[in-house]
Amino acid sequence: MINVGIVGATGYAGEELIDLLLNHPEVRITSISRRIDNQQQISSIFPKFKNRIDLVCDVTNVKKIAAKCDIVFLALPHTVSMEIAPALLKTGLKVIDLSADYRLKDAKVYGKYYEVKHKDVANLAKAVYGLPEVYRLKIKPARFIANPGCYPTVSILSIAPLVAFGLVDPDSIIIDAKSGVTGAGRKLTEGFLFSEINEDFKAYKVNSHQHAPEIDQELSKLASKKLNVTFVPHLLPLNRGILATIYAKKIKGAKHKAQDLVSLYKKFYNSEPFIRIKDAGSFPRLKDVVNTNYCDIGIKEEANQIIVIGAIDNLLKGASGQAVQNMNIMCDFPEEMSLL
Amino acid sequence: MINVGIVGATGYAGEELIDLLLNHPEVRITSISRRIDNQQQISSIFPKFKNRIDLVCDVTNVKKIAAKCDIVFLALPHTVSMEIAPALLKTGLKVIDLSADYRLKDAKVYGKYYEVKHKDVANLAKAVYGLPEVYRLKIKPARFIANPGCYPTVSILSIAPLVAFGLVDPDSIIIDAKSGVTGAGRKLTEGFLFSEINEDFKAYKVNSHQHAPEIDQELSKLASKKLNVTFVPHLLPLNRGILATIYAKKIKGAKHKAQDLVSLYKKFYNSEPFIRIKDAGSFPRLKDVVNTNYCDIGIKEEANQIIVIGAIDNLLKGASGQAVQNMNIMCDFPEEMSLL
Amino acid sequence: MINVGIVGATGYAGEELIDLLLNHPEVRITSISRRIDNQQQISSIFPKFKNRIDLVCDVTNVKKIAAKCDIVFLALPHTVSMEIAPALLKTGLKVIDLSADYRLKDAKVYGKYYEVKHKDVANLAKAVYGLPEVYRLKIKPARFIANPGCYPTVSILSIAPLVAFGLVDPDSIIIDAKSGVTGAGRKLTEGFLFSEINEDFKAYKVNSHQHAPEIDQELSKLASKKLNVTFVPHLLPLNRGILATIYAKKIKGAKHKAQDLVSLYKKFYNSEPFIRIKDAGSFPRLKDVVNTNYCDIGIKEEANQIIVIGAIDNLLKGASGQAVQNMNIMCDFPEEMSLL
Amino acid sequence: MINVGIVGATGYAGEELIDLLLNHPEVRITSISRRIDNQQQISSIFPKFKNRIDLVCDVTNVKKIAAKCDIVFLALPHTVSMEIAPALLKTGLKVIDLSADYRLKDAKVYGKYYEVKHKDVANLAKAVYGLPEVYRLKIKPARFIANPGCYPTVSILSIAPLVAFGLVDPDSIIIDAKSGVTGAGRKLTEGFLFSEINEDFKAYKVNSHQHAPEIDQELSKLASKKLNVTFVPHLLPLNRGILATIYAKKIKGAKHKAQDLVSLYKKFYNSEPFIRIKDAGSFPRLKDVVNTNYCDIGIKEEANQIIVIGAIDNLLKGASGQAVQNMNIMCDFPEEMSLL
Repeated sequence: MINVGIVGATGYAGEELIDLLLNHPEVRITSISRRIDNQQQISSIFPKFKNRIDLVCDVTNVKKIAAKCDIVFLALPHTVSMEIAPALLKTGLKVIDLSADYRLKDAKVYGKYYEVKHKDVANLAKAVYGLPEVYRLKIKPARFIANPGCYPTVSILSIAPLVAFGLVDPDSIIIDAKSGVTGAGRKLTEGFLFSEINEDFKAYKVNSHQHAPEIDQELSKLASKKLNVTFVPHLLPLNRGILATIYAKKIKGAKHKAQDLVSLYKKFYNSEPFIRIKDAGSFPRLKDVVNTNYCDIGIKEEANQIIVIGAIDNLLKGASGQAVQNMNIMCDFPEEMSLL
Repeated sequence: MINVGIVGATGYAGEELIDLLLNHPEVRITSISRRIDNQQQISSIFPKFKNRIDLVCDVTNVKKIAAKCDIVFLALPHTVSMEIAPALLKTGLKVIDLSADYRLKDAKVYGKYYEVKHKDVANLAKAVYGLPEVYRLKIKPARFIANPGCYPTVSILSIAPLVAFGLVDPDSIIIDAKSGVTGAGRKLTEGFLFSEINEDFKAYKVNSHQHAPEIDQELSKLASKKLNVTFVPHLLPLNRGILATIYAKKIKGAKHKAQDLVSLYKKFYNSEPFIRIKDAGSFPRLKDVVNTNYCDIGIKEEANQIIVIGAIDNLLKGASGQAVQNMNIMCDFPEEMSLL
Repeated sequence: MINVGIVGATGYAGEELIDLLLNHPEVRITSISRRIDNQQQISSIFPKFKNRIDLVCDVTNVKKIAAKCDIVFLALPHTVSMEIAPALLKTGLKVIDLSADYRLKDAKVYGKYYEVKHKDVANLAKAVYGLPEVYRLKIKPARFIANPGCYPTVSILSIAPLVAFGLVDPDSIIIDAKSGVTGAGRKLTEGFLFSEINEDFKAYKVNSHQHAPEIDQELSKLASKKLNVTFVPHLLPLNRGILATIYAKKIKGAKHKAQDLVSLYKKFYNSEPFIRIKDAGSFPRLKDVVNTNYCDIGIKEEANQIIVIGAIDNLLKGASGQAVQNMNIMCDFPEEMSLL
Repeated sequence: MINVGIVGATGYAGEELIDLLLNHPEVRITSISRRIDNQQQISSIFPKFKNRIDLVCDVTNVKKIAAKCDIVFLALPHTVSMEIAPALLKTGLKVIDLSADYRLKDAKVYGKYYEVKHKDVANLAKAVYGLPEVYRLKIKPARFIANPGCYPTVSILSIAPLVAFGLVDPDSIIIDAKSGVTGAGRKLTEGFLFSEINEDFKAYKVNSHQHAPEIDQELSKLASKKLNVTFVPHLLPLNRGILATIYAKKIKGAKHKAQDLVSLYKKFYNSEPFIRIKDAGSFPRLKDVVNTNYCDIGIKEEANQIIVIGAIDNLLKGASGQAVQNMNIMCDFPEEMSLL
């Protein structure tokens, strides 16, 4: 049994963490906090937790958290995490950061995409990128996790086998991604009003989204070559889920048939508890992954064009579910615990 | 051909007015303004109007409006209309006010429900309540119209025949109303974010909504007796439309069968261009009235319980459509012009 | 550890049962069947169950089920359950029937509302109405449960305290109910197509719905007096959840203030694990109960008009969740097991 | 004033045609028919037309239509149009066919994608592909129009300038398209039930959709070279609208900056009434085109990757609106008549 704290509990990711951790048999939530100094029962902020949890949401205080917790989740907006993470790490707490602050290893790239100078470059190198299917062995002993972004999670998992085996031209990768609204967090801007989004659909940050360099960084490692994906995110009129349709050109001479690619994916992800590869001719849909921690992937090949479609729940495998998966790995709990 | 101005053009009602008036063969839009001093093409505020209108949205200026217009629509939030209406009326302009400021004839009731002292009591009595099916003869010569609220429009039209003929106990009227999201205007509050409303449903202002006294005022006149309805509005996860389910007890001794009530309604609204009474056993649905100026009404009677269901598009018959209908009446245009 | 079977596994309620039972630590699903003879992995019918369950969905066979199971859930359409329930009961199996076939104790009323003669009148009296908050003591030793309808569950729970204590005129009860689309089951009719329901809202079976006599039957027992509610259901453009707004007139002389009623409800449902009473001035919303087994209830009183609003997830507390709750009671498992 | 008939009036395209033609000042609808012999007021099939049109929907009869009409719209499913078109054409009627039956000039390709042998090869060559922005001069004198598909309309219009000017590698074109549900017509299949589509998103017919050869046929003409696009359609949980995100590689040596491409598009579509090119940095959204006949297009260029995004209303510019636009051209009416 471990004691867990959540900092930034009132966003979507925080809400989801509470839900998952309340059902986790090896976890006791001992601290819930946010930046605002306005003590309030968490169950009065989220009436859905009434009768389930009796904790007060306090203002974040590093000492108090260190006294009460073994591990802490930061469900904070980017640029805010790096203001508190160093102090938390110093107390010896294990930290899982769901923000973007420690994902990009190059502080300059961070500065460019998040439009602010990085304030904790020292810890950048210490943070392990928390994608278990790629970095499980590093996650196990880690004290500090940079939990991946939602778009990068589904994009990297979907294209990794092709890139790792050198089957596709790394410069040809196009990611056409579609996300539900919670992907953007609980932002109070006119563009997120119900009547703006309902019955609408549009692209945004066309090939300029801050998740593109995160995808580039990770795929470049897998390709052993610097690459740049074309990345166009779109906003779906629904609450949860991301589906990414990915296009890549097969390297000339690479010999695989459709069935081959499906087999190759199944082998690549063999025994991964949260990756499900669709049989040839089948493709994922959001309905099958929403409210789960699964990433479903389907593949099709035609002439030299490869099409891969991946789907996740952006708040689970794309955020809080993956964070709990990382915690399970770090704490030697069964990896699926509270996630099925 | 008349020249028309719109004040408060950037809310939902203003947007809808522009759309209707652009298609009106007897109207030229000559002034579009708002409170903010930030000149901008209306087609850059609403890209959907690109290629259709070339006007700049200016800061509201009474003199300029008076110089350019014959009639002006105020699509302003309540409490704002009464700050500008007196000056506009003084210039001799005809004014159709879509806000709530001049609907309630009793300034005290206004003060109680809108939580602000009324600033233009002098003009309260001059404003004609713009419900054509009840006040057409007064609207024709009027210079100043208080355009009805959306809930009152559908509620009054649905129950008026029963109240006017004294068939129901006036103290038994219960209005269970359900509205799409645009009914609340373009408000930037957390409760109106997409992910708060999508897949959710709830009541709000349970029996304390500001439209209740407006319904009471008008039904009391029809009943020749002070009455108070029970009014519970709910928020639907859709863009447009209001459906009201109304319950009332039949007065003992009143002898009507179901078929009778349908006939009675058809007679009562005979030749009304925008009222459609459903045949016995049929009831309205939003789909049939959305994007139209119609009010559809269905009636059922069982023992002494009468159930009436009414439906309108809250932005058309419940706001801008009715405003244009009033303009058509005032200007001697065919009442349906640009509304079919 | 008990062995459980599901008959009619491919409807919404069956799908939900599988989900709940897979997470139940005391249950092993040993049989999944449907009427069609077309053996298929349940995970290929519902890809979302891939990796979670490895059972084949078989054609229903009483002997096989009896050999493999201790308890069986019937998630069948009404009129179908009564064709198989007698045989299952004869084998000694415990049966929880989610259909409407054994809820109405009067076979004539059943015949009138379901338009078919009842085929198993003998077992009607043996079936315990599975509403734990009212019949827990009878459910415990029962071998046969008629699981309540979704509308009756939320309606009865919401109004029961008032009726039981004789605070309201039993002839004044009006239930204006709004349900998500899964409430109707997986029906292939034009009215349930996406483009028919999306952005639409309407009433249906206005005061003629088959759940009304079920509500009447149960409330009449509580009132010790035959009563008939007015019941108008509506169809919401969302997947899950029912919200019922209930109106009743206070009995003259009954002396309670708003706060009193809230207290009275809290006492009445004291220690009930799945009933949450809102504080005065607060009302339920679907978001807080969807994907949970809770029933949230809010109450308001004004003059002699009482307004109660109740909300549940129609597939959980309104169907499969309540069925599992009943199983937990029958099997002496903690009542909340797998339901939080 | 011309007399117009609609065959297949009860699908989405037919419903939309009635709406547009009722508001067309130069048109009288004189015949409405369908394949089923079940005479019914069209306003009882679609209650929204009550009070607007008084015609009976009859069983389709070529002689009667020829006697009453000058021009006829076929809003029939594919494979059905070619059974009636020859007879209608023989009577001398002008015919605008909204089905897919006469769009593909190669009957073999038709056979492959629609899985049926073409029954009227003779008329294939006579049908003019009704995309006014490309074929206006041929449409004007035409007697027979094959109205383009919804996906082809937005895809061809979005990429035409680049292909026509030879700026992109014709083999690099990837079209990632997203459509609302009405795009598929009023089909009664489980996949189109509300609860299947709501809160879901998925690709379908991945690179095997029947609209791909239609796009190939038209773009090949523009490119003066046989090309094959990669085409992946997706299903959006909303009623109306298609947005296509198109990727293409710039030909080496082709020198254009982002601004250049926007200018090039603006010139290419100069004076087109229904094409609106977004300024650099802006992209279309469905909201701006739904319920209009516009096609909005935005372009971005980065390194040698060009991204074009186009949006239309699938029932208007993608079907009935374009059909009326074609009629306006054929009849010498102003092209925008009843379409603004």
